[in-house]
Amino acid sequence: MFTYRHRVQFYETDLMGIVHHSNYLRIFEEARVAWAHDRGLIEYQTPESAFQLAVLETKVKHLAPAKFGDEVLVHLQVRQERARIRFFYRMSVNDKVLSECETLHAALDKDLRPMRPPQKFCEILEKEKWTEI
Amino acid sequence: MFTYRHRVQFYETDLMGIVHHSNYLRIFEEARVAWAHDRGLIEYQTPESAFQLAVLETKVKHLAPAKFGDEVLVHLQVRQERARIRFFYRMSVNDKVLSECETLHAALDKDLRPMRPPQKFCEILEKEKWTEI
Amino acid sequence: MFTYRHRVQFYETDLMGIVHHSNYLRIFEEARVAWAHDRGLIEYQTPESAFQLAVLETKVKHLAPAKFGDEVLVHLQVRQERARIRFFYRMSVNDKVLSECETLHAALDKDLRPMRPPQKFCEILEKEKWTEI
Amino acid sequence: MFTYRHRVQFYETDLMGIVHHSNYLRIFEEARVAWAHDRGLIEYQTPESAFQLAVLETKVKHLAPAKFGDEVLVHLQVRQERARIRFFYRMSVNDKVLSECETLHAALDKDLRPMRPPQKFCEILEKEKWTEI
Repeated sequence: MFTYRHRVQFYETDLMGIVHHSNYLRIFEEARVAWAHDRGLIEYQTPESAFQLAVLETKVKHLAPAKFGDEVLVHLQVRQERARIRFFYRMSVNDKVLSECETLHAALDKDLRPMRPPQKFCEILEKEKWTEI
Repeated sequence: MFTYRHRVQFYETDLMGIVHHSNYLRIFEEARVAWAHDRGLIEYQTPESAFQLAVLETKVKHLAPAKFGDEVLVHLQVRQERARIRFFYRMSVNDKVLSECETLHAALDKDLRPMRPPQKFCEILEKEKWTEI
Repeated sequence: MFTYRHRVQFYETDLMGIVHHSNYLRIFEEARVAWAHDRGLIEYQTPESAFQLAVLETKVKHLAPAKFGDEVLVHLQVRQERARIRFFYRMSVNDKVLSECETLHAALDKDLRPMRPPQKFCEILEKEKWTEI
Repeated sequence: MFTYRHRVQFYETDLMGIVHHSNYLRIFEEARVAWAHDRGLIEYQTPESAFQLAVLETKVKHLAPAKFGDEVLVHLQVRQERARIRFFYRMSVNDKVLSECETLHAALDKDLRPMRPPQKFCEILEKEKWTEI
Protein backbone atom coordinates (compact mmCIF):
# COMPACT_ATOMS: atom_id res chain seq x y z
CA MET A 1 0.00 0.00 0.00
CA PHE A 2 1.08 3.53 -0.71
CA THR A 3 1.89 5.41 2.47
CA TYR A 4 2.03 9.16 3.03
CA ARG A 5 3.30 11.04 6.09
CA HIS A 6 1.88 14.31 7.33
CA ARG A 7 2.89 16.42 10.32
CA VAL A 8 -0.20 18.01 11.86
CA GLN A 9 0.12 21.79 11.81
CA PHE A 10 -1.05 24.37 14.33
CA TYR A 11 -3.35 25.99 11.76
CA GLU A 12 -5.11 22.66 11.20
CA THR A 13 -6.51 22.62 14.75
CA ASP A 14 -9.67 24.25 16.07
CA LEU A 15 -10.79 25.41 19.48
CA MET A 16 -11.53 21.83 20.57
CA GLY A 17 -7.73 21.45 20.47
CA ILE A 18 -7.86 18.83 17.70
CA VAL A 19 -7.68 18.81 13.90
CA HIS A 20 -10.81 20.32 12.33
CA HIS A 21 -12.79 17.67 10.48
CA SER A 22 -12.61 19.51 7.15
CA ASN A 23 -8.82 19.25 7.24
CA TYR A 24 -8.89 15.46 7.06
CA LEU A 25 -10.07 15.79 3.45
CA ARG A 26 -7.08 18.05 2.80
CA ILE A 27 -4.66 15.56 4.27
CA PHE A 28 -6.26 12.75 2.25
CA GLU A 29 -5.91 14.94 -0.85
CA GLU A 30 -2.22 15.37 -0.06
CA ALA A 31 -1.90 11.58 0.01
CA ARG A 32 -3.88 11.15 -3.23
CA VAL A 33 -1.80 13.74 -5.07
CA ALA A 34 1.44 12.25 -3.75
CA TRP A 35 0.29 8.82 -4.96
CA ALA A 36 -0.70 10.17 -8.39
CA HIS A 37 2.61 12.01 -8.68
CA ASP A 38 4.49 8.90 -7.62
CA ARG A 39 2.73 6.92 -10.37
CA GLY A 40 3.43 9.56 -13.01
CA LEU A 41 -0.22 10.61 -13.32
CA ILE A 42 0.09 14.18 -12.07
CA GLU A 43 2.70 16.51 -13.43
CA TYR A 44 3.12 19.33 -10.95
CA GLN A 45 4.04 21.67 -13.78
CA THR A 46 0.78 20.92 -15.63
CA PRO A 47 -1.94 21.43 -13.04
CA GLU A 48 -4.56 20.30 -15.57
CA SER A 49 -3.35 16.76 -14.97
CA ALA A 50 -4.82 16.94 -11.45
CA PHE A 51 -8.28 17.63 -12.88
CA GLN A 52 -8.67 13.95 -13.66
CA LEU A 53 -9.27 13.38 -9.99
CA ALA A 54 -12.34 15.61 -9.66
CA VAL A 55 -14.23 14.70 -6.50
CA LEU A 56 -17.74 13.18 -6.75
CA GLU A 57 -18.18 11.82 -3.23
CA THR A 58 -16.39 11.77 0.10
CA LYS A 59 -17.05 9.71 3.24
CA VAL A 60 -15.00 10.12 6.39
CA LYS A 61 -15.22 8.23 9.69
CA HIS A 62 -13.56 9.73 12.74
CA LEU A 63 -12.43 7.20 15.32
CA ALA A 64 -9.99 9.29 17.35
CA PRO A 65 -8.76 12.86 16.97
CA ALA A 66 -5.50 13.89 15.34
CA LYS A 67 -3.62 16.46 17.37
CA PHE A 68 -1.08 19.23 16.85
CA GLY A 69 2.35 17.80 16.12
CA ASP A 70 1.13 14.26 15.41
CA GLU A 71 3.00 12.61 12.57
CA VAL A 72 0.14 10.74 10.96
CA LEU A 73 0.47 8.00 8.36
CA VAL A 74 -2.06 7.69 5.56
CA HIS A 75 -2.32 4.28 3.89
CA LEU A 76 -4.02 4.56 0.52
CA GLN A 77 -5.46 2.12 -1.99
CA VAL A 78 -7.21 2.80 -5.26
CA ARG A 79 -9.20 0.98 -7.93
CA GLN A 80 -11.07 1.78 -11.11
CA GLU A 81 -14.86 1.27 -11.20
CA ARG A 82 -15.77 1.76 -14.87
CA ALA A 83 -15.54 5.49 -15.52
CA ARG A 84 -14.87 6.22 -11.87
CA ILE A 85 -11.93 5.91 -9.54
CA ARG A 86 -12.28 5.01 -5.87
CA PHE A 87 -9.70 5.72 -3.19
CA PHE A 88 -9.66 4.29 0.30
CA TYR A 89 -7.53 5.85 3.06
CA ARG A 90 -6.68 4.91 6.62
CA MET A 91 -5.02 7.49 8.85
CA SER A 92 -3.14 6.33 11.91
CA VAL A 93 -0.64 7.51 14.46
CA ASN A 94 1.54 5.02 16.34
CA ASP A 95 -0.60 2.16 14.95
CA LYS A 96 -3.80 3.69 16.32
CA VAL A 97 -6.37 4.27 13.59
CA LEU A 98 -7.71 7.83 13.68
CA SER A 99 -9.83 7.97 10.57
CA GLU A 100 -10.98 6.07 7.49
CA CYS A 101 -12.11 7.67 4.27
CA GLU A 102 -13.39 6.86 0.81
CA THR A 103 -13.41 9.28 -2.08
CA LEU A 104 -14.96 8.72 -5.49
CA HIS A 105 -13.63 10.55 -8.53
CA ALA A 106 -14.34 11.12 -12.18
CA ALA A 107 -12.07 12.26 -14.96
CA LEU A 108 -13.05 15.74 -16.13
CA ASP A 109 -11.60 17.82 -18.91
CA LYS A 110 -10.57 21.45 -18.48
CA ASP A 111 -14.16 22.59 -19.03
CA LEU A 112 -15.25 20.33 -16.16
CA ARG A 113 -17.03 17.88 -18.49
CA PRO A 114 -16.79 14.11 -17.84
CA MET A 115 -14.30 12.21 -19.99
CA ARG A 116 -13.03 8.64 -20.05
CA PRO A 117 -10.00 8.20 -17.83
CA PRO A 118 -6.98 8.34 -20.13
CA GLN A 119 -5.49 4.99 -21.18
CA LYS A 120 -2.35 5.58 -19.13
CA PHE A 121 -4.50 6.11 -16.06
CA CYS A 122 -6.34 2.82 -16.60
CA GLU A 123 -3.16 0.85 -17.11
CA ILE A 124 -1.68 2.12 -13.90
CA LEU A 125 -4.85 1.47 -11.94
CA GLU A 126 -4.92 -2.15 -13.11
CA LYS A 127 -1.61 -2.73 -11.38
CA GLU A 128 -2.77 -1.36 -8.01
CA LYS A 129 -3.68 -3.82 -5.28
CA TRP A 130 -7.03 -3.52 -3.49
CA THR A 131 -7.72 -5.30 -0.23
CA GLU A 132 -11.30 -5.56 0.99
CA ILE A 133 -11.55 -4.35 4.56
CA MET B 1 -36.61 23.36 7.07
CA PHE B 2 -33.91 25.60 8.42
CA THR B 3 -32.18 27.55 5.65
CA TYR B 4 -28.75 29.19 5.69
CA ARG B 5 -27.25 31.52 3.09
CA HIS B 6 -23.56 31.68 2.24
CA ARG B 7 -21.75 33.86 -0.28
CA VAL B 8 -18.91 31.88 -1.88
CA GLN B 9 -15.59 33.60 -1.20
CA PHE B 10 -12.53 33.91 -3.42
CA TYR B 11 -10.39 32.04 -0.88
CA GLU B 12 -12.78 29.06 -1.00
CA THR B 13 -11.90 28.32 -4.64
CA ASP B 14 -9.03 26.26 -6.02
CA LEU B 15 -7.18 26.20 -9.32
CA MET B 16 -10.05 24.33 -10.98
CA GLY B 17 -11.92 27.61 -10.57
CA ILE B 18 -14.54 26.09 -8.26
CA VAL B 19 -15.01 25.67 -4.51
CA HIS B 20 -12.54 23.17 -3.05
CA HIS B 21 -14.36 20.06 -1.84
CA SER B 22 -13.08 20.42 1.75
CA ASN B 23 -14.81 23.79 2.00
CA TYR B 24 -18.27 22.26 1.60
CA LEU B 25 -17.85 20.75 5.07
CA ARG B 26 -17.06 24.23 6.35
CA ILE B 27 -20.15 25.72 4.77
CA PHE B 28 -22.27 22.88 6.18
CA GLU B 29 -20.72 23.56 9.58
CA GLU B 30 -21.73 27.21 9.26
CA ALA B 31 -25.30 26.06 8.63
CA ARG B 32 -25.22 23.60 11.54
CA VAL B 33 -23.87 26.20 13.96
CA ALA B 34 -26.39 28.78 12.75
CA TRP B 35 -29.19 26.26 13.32
CA ALA B 36 -27.90 25.35 16.79
CA HIS B 37 -27.56 29.01 17.70
CA ASP B 38 -31.05 29.70 16.38
CA ARG B 39 -32.43 26.91 18.60
CA GLY B 40 -30.55 28.16 21.66
CA LEU B 41 -28.18 25.18 21.75
CA ILE B 42 -24.92 27.01 21.10
CA GLU B 43 -23.97 30.09 23.04
CA TYR B 44 -21.32 31.94 21.06
CA GLN B 45 -19.85 33.24 24.30
CA THR B 46 -19.41 29.70 25.68
CA PRO B 47 -17.59 27.79 22.95
CA GLU B 48 -17.83 24.60 25.02
CA SER B 49 -21.49 24.44 24.02
CA ALA B 50 -20.40 23.69 20.44
CA PHE B 51 -18.55 20.57 21.60
CA GLN B 52 -21.84 18.72 21.77
CA LEU B 53 -21.76 18.49 18.01
CA ALA B 54 -18.45 16.61 17.70
CA VAL B 55 -18.20 15.02 14.26
CA LEU B 56 -18.21 11.21 13.93
CA GLU B 57 -18.92 10.83 10.22
CA THR B 58 -19.35 12.95 7.12
CA LYS B 59 -20.65 12.04 3.66
CA VAL B 60 -20.77 14.54 0.82
CA LYS B 61 -22.09 14.13 -2.73
CA HIS B 62 -21.05 16.67 -5.33
CA LEU B 63 -23.56 17.14 -8.14
CA ALA B 64 -22.42 20.47 -9.59
CA PRO B 65 -19.69 22.89 -8.56
CA ALA B 66 -20.21 26.00 -6.46
CA LYS B 67 -18.41 29.02 -7.87
CA PHE B 68 -16.93 32.30 -6.68
CA GLY B 69 -19.69 34.76 -5.84
CA ASP B 70 -22.52 32.21 -5.79
CA GLU B 71 -25.04 32.84 -3.07
CA VAL B 72 -25.77 29.27 -2.06
CA LEU B 73 -28.65 28.13 0.11
CA VAL B 74 -28.21 25.28 2.56
CA HIS B 75 -31.38 23.50 3.68
CA LEU B 76 -30.81 21.55 6.87
CA GLN B 77 -32.71 18.91 8.81
CA VAL B 78 -31.71 17.07 11.94
CA ARG B 79 -32.82 14.16 14.09
CA GLN B 80 -31.68 12.28 17.15
CA GLU B 81 -30.66 8.62 16.79
CA ARG B 82 -30.22 7.40 20.37
CA ALA B 83 -26.96 8.94 21.60
CA ARG B 84 -26.22 10.37 18.18
CA ILE B 85 -27.43 13.31 16.16
CA ARG B 86 -27.75 13.19 12.38
CA PHE B 87 -27.84 16.22 10.11
CA PHE B 88 -28.81 16.27 6.45
CA TYR B 89 -27.98 19.21 4.20
CA ARG B 90 -28.82 20.18 0.63
CA MET B 91 -26.89 23.02 -0.99
CA SER B 92 -28.40 24.75 -3.98
CA VAL B 93 -28.06 27.87 -6.06
CA ASN B 94 -31.01 29.18 -8.08
CA ASP B 95 -32.91 25.93 -7.36
CA LYS B 96 -30.10 23.82 -8.79
CA VAL B 97 -28.83 21.28 -6.28
CA LEU B 98 -25.04 21.44 -5.96
CA SER B 99 -24.36 19.07 -3.10
CA GLU B 100 -25.95 16.82 -0.47
CA CYS B 101 -24.37 15.92 2.81
CA GLU B 102 -24.95 13.92 5.98
CA THR B 103 -23.02 14.38 9.18
CA LEU B 104 -23.27 12.23 12.30
CA HIS B 105 -22.42 13.68 15.68
CA ALA B 106 -21.99 12.70 19.29
CA ALA B 107 -22.11 14.79 22.41
CA LEU B 108 -18.67 15.05 24.00
CA ASP B 109 -17.66 16.75 27.19
CA LYS B 110 -14.69 19.14 27.44
CA ASP B 111 -12.29 16.25 27.79
CA LEU B 112 -13.61 14.81 24.51
CA ARG B 113 -15.39 11.90 26.26
CA PRO B 114 -18.85 10.77 25.06
CA MET B 115 -21.76 11.99 27.12
CA ARG B 116 -25.55 11.77 26.77
CA PRO B 117 -26.95 14.68 24.81
CA PRO B 118 -28.27 17.15 27.41
CA GLN B 119 -32.01 17.04 28.08
CA LYS B 120 -32.53 20.45 26.47
CA PHE B 121 -30.86 19.16 23.32
CA CYS B 122 -33.18 16.13 23.15
CA GLU B 123 -36.30 18.20 23.68
CA ILE B 124 -35.41 20.53 20.87
CA LEU B 125 -34.52 17.69 18.51
CA GLU B 126 -37.91 16.07 19.12
CA LYS B 127 -39.59 19.13 17.66
CA GLU B 128 -37.52 19.13 14.45
CA LYS B 129 -39.14 17.76 11.28
CA TRP B 130 -37.34 15.09 9.27
CA THR B 131 -38.37 14.26 5.71
CA GLU B 132 -37.07 11.07 4.12
CA ILE B 133 -35.49 11.85 0.78
CA MET C 1 -16.51 54.22 5.14
CA PHE C 2 -17.58 50.90 3.72
CA THR C 3 -18.49 48.43 6.44
CA TYR C 4 -18.63 44.64 6.26
CA ARG C 5 -19.99 42.20 8.83
CA HIS C 6 -18.59 38.75 9.44
CA ARG C 7 -19.71 36.10 11.93
CA VAL C 8 -16.64 34.21 13.23
CA GLN C 9 -16.96 30.53 12.40
CA PHE C 10 -15.85 27.50 14.41
CA TYR C 11 -13.46 26.41 11.64
CA GLU C 12 -11.68 29.76 11.81
CA THR C 13 -10.42 29.10 15.33
CA ASP C 14 -7.29 27.24 16.40
CA LEU C 15 -6.26 25.42 19.56
CA MET C 16 -5.59 28.71 21.35
CA GLY C 17 -9.37 29.13 21.21
CA ILE C 18 -9.16 32.24 19.02
CA VAL C 19 -9.23 33.01 15.29
CA HIS C 20 -6.05 31.82 13.55
CA HIS C 21 -4.01 34.80 12.33
CA SER C 22 -4.09 33.64 8.69
CA ASN C 23 -7.88 33.89 8.71
CA TYR C 24 -7.83 37.64 9.29
CA LEU C 25 -6.51 38.02 5.73
CA ARG C 26 -9.48 35.94 4.55
CA ILE C 27 -11.97 38.10 6.41
CA PHE C 28 -10.31 41.25 5.03
CA GLU C 29 -10.54 39.71 1.55
CA GLU C 30 -14.26 39.15 2.11
CA ALA C 31 -14.58 42.85 2.93
CA ARG C 32 -12.50 43.91 -0.10
CA VAL C 33 -14.50 41.75 -2.48
CA ALA C 34 -17.79 42.95 -0.99
CA TRP C 35 -16.63 46.56 -1.47
CA ALA C 36 -15.53 45.89 -5.06
CA HIS C 37 -18.81 44.16 -5.81
CA ASP C 38 -20.74 47.01 -4.22
CA ARG C 39 -18.89 49.49 -6.47
CA GLY C 40 -19.50 47.42 -9.60
CA LEU C 41 -15.83 46.44 -9.99
CA ILE C 42 -16.17 42.70 -9.48
CA GLU C 43 -18.76 40.67 -11.33
CA TYR C 44 -19.27 37.42 -9.47
CA GLN C 45 -20.10 35.70 -12.73
CA THR C 46 -16.79 36.77 -14.31
CA PRO C 47 -14.14 35.75 -11.80
CA GLU C 48 -11.45 37.32 -13.99
CA SER C 49 -12.67 40.69 -12.74
CA ALA C 50 -11.30 39.81 -9.29
CA PHE C 51 -7.80 39.39 -10.72
CA GLN C 52 -7.37 43.14 -10.79
CA LEU C 53 -6.87 43.04 -7.05
CA ALA C 54 -3.81 40.78 -7.03
CA VAL C 55 -2.04 41.05 -3.68
CA LEU C 56 1.47 42.59 -3.50
CA GLU C 57 1.78 43.21 0.23
CA THR C 58 -0.11 42.62 3.44
CA LYS C 59 0.43 44.01 6.95
CA VAL C 60 -1.70 42.99 9.88
CA LYS C 61 -1.60 44.19 13.50
CA HIS C 62 -3.34 42.12 16.13
CA LEU C 63 -4.57 44.09 19.13
CA ALA C 64 -7.06 41.65 20.62
CA PRO C 65 -8.27 38.23 19.52
CA ALA C 66 -11.47 37.55 17.62
CA LYS C 67 -13.42 34.63 19.04
CA PHE C 68 -15.91 32.02 17.89
CA GLY C 69 -19.31 33.59 17.36
CA ASP C 70 -18.10 37.21 17.40
CA GLU C 71 -19.88 39.38 14.88
CA VAL C 72 -16.97 41.52 13.76
CA LEU C 73 -17.24 44.72 11.75
CA VAL C 74 -14.62 45.56 9.15
CA HIS C 75 -14.31 49.22 8.20
CA LEU C 76 -12.52 49.65 4.89
CA GLN C 77 -11.00 52.52 2.95
CA VAL C 78 -9.13 52.48 -0.32
CA ARG C 79 -7.07 54.80 -2.52
CA GLN C 80 -5.11 54.65 -5.74
CA GLU C 81 -1.32 55.16 -5.60
CA ARG C 82 -0.27 55.40 -9.26
CA ALA C 83 -0.47 51.86 -10.64
CA ARG C 84 -1.26 50.43 -7.22
CA ILE C 85 -4.28 50.28 -4.99
CA ARG C 86 -4.05 50.43 -1.21
CA PHE C 87 -6.71 49.20 1.20
CA PHE C 88 -6.87 49.92 4.90
CA TYR C 89 -9.08 47.85 7.23
CA ARG C 90 -10.06 48.08 10.88
CA MET C 91 -11.77 45.11 12.51
CA SER C 92 -13.74 45.65 15.67
CA VAL C 93 -16.32 43.99 17.86
CA ASN C 94 -18.57 46.07 20.13
CA ASP C 95 -16.40 49.16 19.39
CA LYS C 96 -13.24 47.36 20.54
CA VAL C 97 -10.58 47.33 17.83
CA LEU C 98 -9.24 43.81 17.25
CA SER C 99 -7.01 44.27 14.24
CA GLU C 100 -5.77 46.76 11.64
CA CYS C 101 -4.54 45.81 8.21
CA GLU C 102 -3.15 47.30 5.01
CA THR C 103 -3.02 45.49 1.70
CA LEU C 104 -1.37 46.72 -1.48
CA HIS C 105 -2.59 45.52 -4.86
CA ALA C 106 -1.75 45.70 -8.52
CA ALA C 107 -3.93 45.14 -11.54
CA LEU C 108 -2.91 41.96 -13.34
CA ASP C 109 -4.27 40.47 -16.53
CA LYS C 110 -5.31 36.83 -16.88
CA ASP C 111 -1.72 35.80 -17.53
CA LEU C 112 -0.70 37.44 -14.24
CA ARG C 113 1.12 40.31 -15.97
CA PRO C 114 0.87 43.86 -14.59
CA MET C 115 -1.55 46.15 -16.39
CA ARG C 116 -2.84 49.69 -15.79
CA PRO C 117 -5.94 49.68 -13.61
CA PRO C 118 -8.90 50.00 -16.00
CA GLN C 119 -10.34 53.50 -16.40
CA LYS C 120 -13.56 52.53 -14.61
CA PHE C 121 -11.49 51.38 -11.65
CA CYS C 122 -9.63 54.70 -11.46
CA GLU C 123 -12.81 56.75 -11.67
CA ILE C 124 -14.39 54.88 -8.82
CA LEU C 125 -11.27 55.10 -6.67
CA GLU C 126 -11.20 58.89 -7.10
CA LYS C 127 -14.56 59.12 -5.39
CA GLU C 128 -13.51 57.11 -2.34
CA LYS C 129 -12.69 58.98 0.86
CA TRP C 130 -9.40 58.32 2.63
CA THR C 131 -8.82 59.43 6.22
CA GLU C 132 -5.29 59.45 7.58
CA ILE C 133 -5.16 57.54 10.85
CA MET D 1 19.93 29.77 8.60
CA PHE D 2 17.18 27.33 9.41
CA THR D 3 15.54 25.98 6.25
CA TYR D 4 12.13 24.40 5.86
CA ARG D 5 10.72 22.60 2.80
CA HIS D 6 7.06 22.65 1.82
CA ARG D 7 5.33 21.02 -1.13
CA VAL D 8 2.54 23.28 -2.40
CA GLN D 9 -0.79 21.47 -2.18
CA PHE D 10 -3.78 21.61 -4.50
CA TYR D 11 -6.00 22.95 -1.71
CA GLU D 12 -3.63 25.88 -1.18
CA THR D 13 -4.38 27.32 -4.62
CA ASP D 14 -7.21 29.63 -5.65
CA LEU D 15 -8.96 30.33 -8.94
CA MET D 16 -6.05 32.49 -10.12
CA GLY D 17 -4.17 29.17 -10.29
CA ILE D 18 -1.65 30.23 -7.64
CA VAL D 19 -1.30 29.90 -3.87
CA HIS D 20 -3.82 32.07 -2.03
CA HIS D 21 -2.05 34.88 -0.17
CA SER D 22 -3.44 33.82 3.23
CA ASN D 23 -1.70 30.46 2.87
CA TYR D 24 1.75 32.03 2.89
CA LEU D 25 1.23 32.82 6.56
CA ARG D 26 0.39 29.15 7.11
CA ILE D 27 3.54 28.00 5.37
CA PHE D 28 5.61 30.50 7.38
CA GLU D 29 3.95 29.16 10.53
CA GLU D 30 4.98 25.64 9.52
CA ALA D 31 8.56 26.89 9.25
CA ARG D 32 8.40 28.71 12.59
CA VAL D 33 6.98 25.70 14.40
CA ALA D 34 9.55 23.39 12.78
CA TRP D 35 12.31 25.76 13.93
CA ALA D 36 10.91 25.96 17.46
CA HIS D 37 10.55 22.19 17.63
CA ASP D 38 14.09 21.77 16.29
CA ARG D 39 15.39 24.06 19.06
CA GLY D 40 13.43 22.23 21.76
CA LEU D 41 11.04 25.14 22.37
CA ILE D 42 7.81 23.48 21.26
CA GLU D 43 6.80 20.09 22.54
CA TYR D 44 4.23 18.68 20.17
CA GLN D 45 2.65 16.78 23.03
CA THR D 46 2.17 19.96 25.05
CA PRO D 47 0.43 22.37 22.70
CA GLU D 48 0.60 25.10 25.35
CA SER D 49 4.28 25.44 24.50
CA ALA D 50 3.29 26.88 21.13
CA PHE D 51 1.40 29.71 22.83
CA GLN D 52 4.65 31.51 23.47
CA LEU D 53 4.69 32.45 19.82
CA ALA D 54 1.40 34.38 19.80
CA VAL D 55 1.26 36.61 16.73
CA LEU D 56 1.27 40.42 17.16
CA GLU D 57 2.09 41.53 13.61
CA THR D 58 2.64 40.05 10.18
CA LYS D 59 4.04 41.63 7.00
CA VAL D 60 4.26 39.74 3.74
CA LYS D 61 5.69 40.84 0.38
CA HIS D 62 4.74 38.88 -2.70
CA LEU D 63 7.34 38.96 -5.47
CA ALA D 64 6.26 35.99 -7.58
CA PRO D 65 3.51 33.42 -7.14
CA ALA D 66 3.97 29.94 -5.69
CA LYS D 67 2.23 27.26 -7.73
CA PHE D 68 0.73 23.80 -7.25
CA GLY D 69 3.47 21.23 -6.83
CA ASP D 70 6.26 23.71 -6.18
CA GLU D 71 8.71 22.55 -3.56
CA VAL D 72 9.39 25.83 -1.84
CA LEU D 73 12.21 26.51 0.59
CA VAL D 74 11.68 28.82 3.55
CA HIS D 75 14.81 30.35 5.09
CA LEU D 76 14.12 31.64 8.58
CA GLN D 77 15.95 33.82 11.06
CA VAL D 78 14.85 35.02 14.47
CA ARG D 79 15.90 37.44 17.19
CA GLN D 80 14.65 38.68 20.52
CA GLU D 81 13.62 42.35 20.85
CA ARG D 82 13.08 42.82 24.59
CA ALA D 83 9.79 41.09 25.39
CA ARG D 84 9.14 40.35 21.74
CA ILE D 85 10.42 37.89 19.20
CA ARG D 86 10.85 38.74 15.54
CA PHE D 87 11.05 36.22 12.71
CA PHE D 88 12.12 36.90 9.16
CA TYR D 89 11.36 34.46 6.34
CA ARG D 90 12.33 34.23 2.69
CA MET D 91 10.46 31.77 0.48
CA SER D 92 12.06 30.66 -2.76
CA VAL D 93 11.79 28.00 -5.43
CA ASN D 94 14.82 27.10 -7.56
CA ASP D 95 16.68 30.14 -6.14
CA LYS D 96 13.92 32.49 -7.23
CA VAL D 97 12.55 34.51 -4.30
CA LEU D 98 8.76 34.31 -4.14
CA SER D 99 8.00 36.06 -0.89
CA GLU D 100 9.49 37.73 2.17
CA CYS D 101 7.80 37.98 5.53
CA GLU D 102 8.26 39.31 9.04
CA THR D 103 6.23 38.23 12.02
CA LEU D 104 6.38 39.72 15.51
CA HIS D 105 5.43 37.63 18.52
CA ALA D 106 4.89 37.89 22.24
CA ALA D 107 4.94 35.22 24.89
CA LEU D 108 1.46 34.69 26.29
CA ASP D 109 0.32 32.39 29.05
CA LYS D 110 -2.64 30.01 28.74
CA ASP D 111 -5.05 32.80 29.59
CA LEU D 112 -3.62 34.86 26.69
CA ARG D 113 -1.92 37.35 29.03
CA PRO D 114 1.58 38.68 28.18
CA MET D 115 4.44 37.06 30.07
CA ARG D 116 8.23 37.33 29.88
CA PRO D 117 9.68 34.84 27.41
CA PRO D 118 10.91 31.90 29.51
CA GLN D 119 14.63 31.85 30.31
CA LYS D 120 15.21 28.81 28.08
CA PHE D 121 13.64 30.71 25.19
CA CYS D 122 15.95 33.70 25.69
CA GLU D 123 19.07 31.55 25.90
CA ILE D 124 18.27 29.83 22.65
CA LEU D 125 17.45 33.09 20.89
CA GLU D 126 20.84 34.54 21.91
CA LYS D 127 22.56 31.82 19.93
CA GLU D 128 20.60 32.48 16.72
CA LYS D 129 22.30 34.43 13.95
CA TRP D 130 20.57 37.46 12.43
CA THR D 131 21.72 38.95 9.15
CA GLU D 132 20.46 42.39 8.17
CA ILE D 133 19.00 42.30 4.69
